[in-house]
Amino acid sequence: MPLRYTYLGPEGTFSEQALRTLPEVADAVVTAARSVPEALDAVRADEADAALVPLENSVGGAVAVTLDELASGAPLMITREVVLPVQFVLGARAGIDLDAVTTIAAHPQAAAQCRNWLRKNAPGATVVEVLSNAAAAIGAAGGEYDAGICAPIGAARHGLRLLGENIADHADAMTRFALVTRPAVPAPPTGDDATSLVVFIAHDRVGALLQVLTEFALRGVNLTRIESRPTGERLGRYMFFFDCEGHVAEARLGEALMGLHRVSADVRFLGSYPRARLDGRAGGAEFAPGTTDADYAEAADWLTRLRAGGI
Amino acid sequence: MPLRYTYLGPEGTFSEQALRTLPEVADAVVTAARSVPEALDAVRADEADAALVPLENSVGGAVAVTLDELASGAPLMITREVVLPVQFVLGARAGIDLDAVTTIAAHPQAAAQCRNWLRKNAPGATVVEVLSNAAAAIGAAGGEYDAGICAPIGAARHGLRLLGENIADHADAMTRFALVTRPAVPAPPTGDDATSLVVFIAHDRVGALLQVLTEFALRGVNLTRIESRPTGERLGRYMFFFDCEGHVAEARLGEALMGLHRVSADVRFLGSYPRARLDGRAGGAEFAPGTTDADYAEAADWLTRLRAGGI
Repeated sequence: MPLRYTYLGPEGTFSEQALRTLPEVADAVVTAARSVPEALDAVRADEADAALVPLENSVGGAVAVTLDELASGAPLMITREVVLPVQFVLGARAGIDLDAVTTIAAHPQAAAQCRNWLRKNAPGATVVEVLSNAAAAIGAAGGEYDAGICAPIGAARHGLRLLGENIADHADAMTRFALVTRPAVPAPPTGDDATSLVVFIAHDRVGALLQVLTEFALRGVNLTRIESRPTGERLGRYMFFFDCEGHVAEARLGEALMGLHRVSADVRFLGSYPRARLDGRAGGAEFAPGTTDADYAEAADWLTRLRAGGI
Repeated sequence: MPLRYTYLGPEGTFSEQALRTLPEVADAVVTAARSVPEALDAVRADEADAALVPLENSVGGAVAVTLDELASGAPLMITREVVLPVQFVLGARAGIDLDAVTTIAAHPQAAAQCRNWLRKNAPGATVVEVLSNAAAAIGAAGGEYDAGICAPIGAARHGLRLLGENIADHADAMTRFALVTRPAVPAPPTGDDATSLVVFIAHDRVGALLQVLTEFALRGVNLTRIESRPTGERLGRYMFFFDCEGHVAEARLGEALMGLHRVSADVRFLGSYPRARLDGRAGGAEFAPGTTDADYAEAADWLTRLRAGGI
């Protein structure tokens, strides 16, 4: 039976574009979901085997709905990350030239990210805010607006002609997506992995977040992302999303996780998965002195000898 | 000349409702801004004396655009905070009853926050997403939709009849707003103040965030909020918004700020202001042992004696 994938739709989103970069998707059944919760619930209900959803953007920041959904409900697991350059295009129906454009449909985030380009290239046009990049493409294709800011795949899907390519002001903006499945044994370490967690801070302790960060630092575990989100209880109550280098199978990360489990109100493990290296950084995890698996094994042997009366 | 206030408009938003809670606004000239950047730029350009904008919500989290705008551009200062319960209402034109409602306009955040109420009380209605709570009220008033989810002030402003009050699922959801002015000498401490900062982490140092948190903890400065936001440079680069208890005039907070200034890439002071206590918590700052102004003064005297050959 072919694998069943879903993604944050509608058709033509950056999420679909990210999903299509995975070679195994060519043979799969692919369905668009109307929202991130719908995509993840389809995986929970075994109506899909995996969902591709956005996690964070280097300009817009965390995708709050994805974080909130991963932190609550039946547990899910990130098995893969995809990093995609954000390449907005301005698309229009055939026959409409840039000078003739008076209305441009755009998601507010997209409009904000393309502000300078629009000011320079379409100073007379009015930007009309719509609810998604795909809706902008659909609005331009249907004639509701003269043009729309969307993903390249959205313009292609709706037969739009490109009036501008790479129109985002931050030319190197990136979006990071996660492929999410039901919980399973994580794939073995590749030597260049990332691990994602949600930590619910014990709010009755002073300095609880400091203690959490110390648990990572003590074991030489490098944090690559920290996002706070309200728990929804009241102002001042947060959960923290951490991404760190390393794999749950490594001793240093295992000990850090046990430490977090001891000192936090709750920890939800969101998966260990190979790092995507599309942003040009060198790959490969580094181990601070004394933090390799061999160091941990040797220290455990030493303690065993001590307890047995050795030295 | 009367003071000039602006707020995140259009008329009828929660921001207007928060602004109207300030007694001095009764005599002021009040203008709606079309966006948070427009509101803050009006203050920067001296077209307004103060702007009221949303900072965070206990369910939806940080208002990213406000944080990003405060962290960049000409510096501004928070001189006051307003905490408002989020009380969504469902409004409709006269003559439309709840059973007859087939379409409901709502901002996606509002729809998400009222999901359970809608499921129970309007199971047959379709929610149509619009770009603001005020747009939902306008759409319901104009007949484009049967009803709209909005702020109480929005329903009143557009003559809507209330089909439901307090319809949010988290009955105690709160939104925190900031009154922002041009930089000035902060008002003197009230004994129950908060201070806001943006810290740009030195990314070339391992454990830089741990060091930042330690600067606060060492001086017994209690953090009440931490939000990370991307700097826009690339994935993995963050700035951190901190709210802490205390006033910049206090010795403990002064020393913590100097410490942050020394170990961070940059620190932007966003103001010290009286805490709003609408969420029922007890007021009044607490000082850990050894962290009062008197303790700091006594320690400085002691060091001076040591350096002078005393003991």
